[in-house]
Amino acid sequence: MTAYLLTIGDEILIGQIVDTNSAWMSRQLTLCGFRVVGKSSVADSAQAIIEGMEYGARQADVVILTGGLGPTKDDVTKETLADYFGSPMTLHQETYDRIAAYFKKIGRPVPAAATIQATLPDEALILPNKVGSAPGMWFEKDGKVYISLPGVPFEMQYLLEQEVLPMLRQRFPGSIIAHRTLLTVGEGESNIAQRIESFENSLPAHIKLAYLPSLGQVRLRLTGSPDNSGTVAPNGETLYALLDEKMAELKALLPDLVFGIEDDSLESVLGKMLLERRLQFGTAESCTGGYIAHMITSVPGSSDYFPGSIVSYSYEMKTKLLGVRPDTLIKFGAVSEETVREMAAGALKTLHADVALAVSGIAGPGGGTDEKPVGTVWMAVGNRERIVARKHVFGRDRLKNIQLTGVHGLNMVRQFLLNKL
Amino acid sequence: MTAYLLTIGDEILIGQIVDTNSAWMSRQLTLCGFRVVGKSSVADSAQAIIEGMEYGARQADVVILTGGLGPTKDDVTKETLADYFGSPMTLHQETYDRIAAYFKKIGRPVPAAATIQATLPDEALILPNKVGSAPGMWFEKDGKVYISLPGVPFEMQYLLEQEVLPMLRQRFPGSIIAHRTLLTVGEGESNIAQRIESFENSLPAHIKLAYLPSLGQVRLRLTGSPDNSGTVAPNGETLYALLDEKMAELKALLPDLVFGIEDDSLESVLGKMLLERRLQFGTAESCTGGYIAHMITSVPGSSDYFPGSIVSYSYEMKTKLLGVRPDTLIKFGAVSEETVREMAAGALKTLHADVALAVSGIAGPGGGTDEKPVGTVWMAVGNRERIVARKHVFGRDRLKNIQLTGVHGLNMVRQFLLNKL
Repeated sequence: MTAYLLTIGDEILIGQIVDTNSAWMSRQLTLCGFRVVGKSSVADSAQAIIEGMEYGARQADVVILTGGLGPTKDDVTKETLADYFGSPMTLHQETYDRIAAYFKKIGRPVPAAATIQATLPDEALILPNKVGSAPGMWFEKDGKVYISLPGVPFEMQYLLEQEVLPMLRQRFPGSIIAHRTLLTVGEGESNIAQRIESFENSLPAHIKLAYLPSLGQVRLRLTGSPDNSGTVAPNGETLYALLDEKMAELKALLPDLVFGIEDDSLESVLGKMLLERRLQFGTAESCTGGYIAHMITSVPGSSDYFPGSIVSYSYEMKTKLLGVRPDTLIKFGAVSEETVREMAAGALKTLHADVALAVSGIAGPGGGTDEKPVGTVWMAVGNRERIVARKHVFGRDRLKNIQLTGVHGLNMVRQFLLNKL
Repeated sequence: MTAYLLTIGDEILIGQIVDTNSAWMSRQLTLCGFRVVGKSSVADSAQAIIEGMEYGARQADVVILTGGLGPTKDDVTKETLADYFGSPMTLHQETYDRIAAYFKKIGRPVPAAATIQATLPDEALILPNKVGSAPGMWFEKDGKVYISLPGVPFEMQYLLEQEVLPMLRQRFPGSIIAHRTLLTVGEGESNIAQRIESFENSLPAHIKLAYLPSLGQVRLRLTGSPDNSGTVAPNGETLYALLDEKMAELKALLPDLVFGIEDDSLESVLGKMLLERRLQFGTAESCTGGYIAHMITSVPGSSDYFPGSIVSYSYEMKTKLLGVRPDTLIKFGAVSEETVREMAAGALKTLHADVALAVSGIAGPGGGTDEKPVGTVWMAVGNRERIVARKHVFGRDRLKNIQLTGVHGLNMVRQFLLNKL
C-alpha cells in the first residue's frame, strides 16, 4: 500500500509552525509496511486542498489529510471534502453528545461551535476522536481512500494509532514486514556505525538496518521483509526468528550502550531498575532546572521510587537546602566537581534517598568563560557509600544542553546501579 | 511573488528526519513579502523530482529545491536538473578551488569527490556556498525560476539569506504582506471564536484571521495583503497601520486572555514581569514533578528571579520541606485546597520567595477516585499577604495534564501579579 500525506494550514506555509505531524505519520506508516511516496502542504483554501488531494491520489492508494478541522472560519477542510465527495452534511449525534459530555465534565456551557464541529458529511465513515472535538473522516472514491484527521498532534496521533492504522491493515492486507528496535544511549551515530560495520555488511538483503538518532540516543531498527525464496511461513515465523537472532548479535556488539528495546524510554527503564532494587531516588538540579525530575515523573507510578527533587537554581538554595558549603562555591564555583559532589550528598540526606543525581552546568546562552565555556556540565551520582562525578561539554544551545544533561545524567544513574561506574 | 518549496530525500518520507528546512524557508520568504503557496517532499528519484518541480511551477513563480546535492550515489538532484534543463556539465573551477582551499585549510587531502561536487550544469547561475561544498544553482525557464540549495540546514540558510533572497527581491519587486500575532491563554478556540465573532465578520477581505491552538493557549494571527484599490503606500504604511488598529481592537475584546504578542512565551512574559517588579518566584510541585520549574528555567536569565523549586512528590517531602501539616494531608488528602495553600506558604518560606506557585493533582493514568478523578489539579499562588487557590479538572492523559497544569499555573501567577485574582 502506498500513502500520500497532505498537511493543510496557512501556518505551515508561512513557517509559523514546523510540520512534525507528517514526520510522525511517515514513521508509523513505514513501520506498518506502508510506503509514503510523497507529502505536501497546502493553504486553507478549497482549491488548494482539492488540487493537493488529486495530486496525491494520482500517486498513492491512500491520501491522508491533516488540519483545517477547527470550528472557525479559516478551517475549510470539512466543507471542501463534503463538496468534493458530493455529500450533504448533517448533525452527527454521537459526535455532538461526546463534545457536550466533555464540556459538562469540565463544568462549562457547551459552546455554539459544538454544533458546527458535529455537523459532518453523510458519506464519511466517522472515526471517533476520544481526545478532542474534531473526529476523523474516511472517504472512498474510485478505489482510493481519503482520510481526514485533525492537525492537533496528540489528536492526530490518537486517531492514527487507534483507528486509521488498524483499518488500513484490514483494507490493504500487505506482505509481512517486521521490525525490532534496540535503544542505545551515550554514543553518536558515526561511532556506532563504525563499531557495527561488519555486522551491517553481513545482513541479508531482506533485512535493513536504520539509525534513528535523537539527543544523546540512537535507536537501531531492523526491518525484515520476506526474502525472494519466499521461505517465510504464513505467520512470518522464520522472519521473526531471524530478526530475533540479529537483534541478539547487535546487542552483544554494544553491551555498554544498549539500555532497552522497542518503546522503552531511559526514564522507564531506570524506573523499573529502581523498583526492582527497592531504591528511593532523588535529584538535585541546577542547570536542568527541574527537567530531570520531569523526565522521571513522566513515567506513571514514579511516585513509588521518586520522593522529589531540589531545584537549587541559586547559590543560597544550594547551601540552604543541600548543605553545599559556601567555601566550596566560592573556591570552585557552582559548576565544579566539588559542588556537584556536595549537592549529591545533600540530596541523599534532604530527600531521604538511597541514590541521588546532582547536576550543575552552564546551559547558556550567557555565563560561559574561557575555562568553563557554555555547555560545561558537571554531574555526580552516588549512594551513602560512594559518589562518582563526571564532566561533559555539550554545545551552545540552552534547551539542547538541558536535554542532553538529562539523558546523560539518567544514563549515569543506570550505569551506577549496574556497577559499571 | 509566489514560491513553491520542494524538499528532496528518502529520509523525509520515512519520517527519519523532521523537515525543519521548509518551515525556516517559509518564514524567511513570508517575512520578505513573498507568498509560499505550497510545499512538498519527494524521494531521491529523477522522476519524482521532475514531477514535483513541474507541479510547483504550475502554481508559483519560483520553485526552491533543497537536498540531494551530496556526492554519493543516492543524491540525484544535480544530474536531474542538468538533464531537465538540457545543460551539459563541466568542472566549475571557482567551486573546485573553494573546496580545495577548505581541505587545505583543515590539513586534509582534497577528496576525489570534490571533482564530482564541482562539476556543475553550464546553464545554471552558480551561487557560491562559503560554508560547505555544494553550491546553490539558479535556473530560469519559460519565465519561471528554479533554485537548488543543499539540504544541510546551515548551508541552506546561508545561501538563502546571502544569495537567494537579495536576488529574488531584485527579480520580483514584490507586493507587501504583513502579519501580527496576539497570544492568549486560558480559553479554547471555540470560546474565543464566539467572543470575537462580530470582529471577525467585520474584517475587510484583505485581512485574514487565523486561530493557532496549542495546549491551553491559542495564538490569533492577522495577515494583511494590499486591498484591490491598491491604497497601500509603497512602504506598506497604510496596511501596517490598519493591522495595528485591528490588533488593538482584538486585544480589547479579550483583555483577560491576551498575554503577549509575536514570539513571546508565557514563561518569558512572566519572567519580564517578575524582573520589572524585582520579585523572587519559587514553585512547589507535586503532580508536575518539576515541569513548571523547567518551563521557567527554559528562559535565559531566569536565575535572576527564580531561586528554585521544591519537587515534593512524596507526603514526607511535603511535610519536611514545605511544612505541610500531616493532619492536613490525612484529613484533606494531597490533592486539596488546604494542602496546596500550605505548600504555597511553605514555598515562600523555604525558597525565600516573594511569590510562589504550588500545584498538586492526579496526573494519571492511575490514582483517580469518583470524587477526585484523574486530571483533578489544585493550584495556589500567593505572597506573604494572601494566597489564592483554584481547582481544575483536565483530562486523562498524564503528559497533557502535566503540561496543562504548567500553562494554567503560570497564567495564574501572571493574573495574581496583575491583581486580577
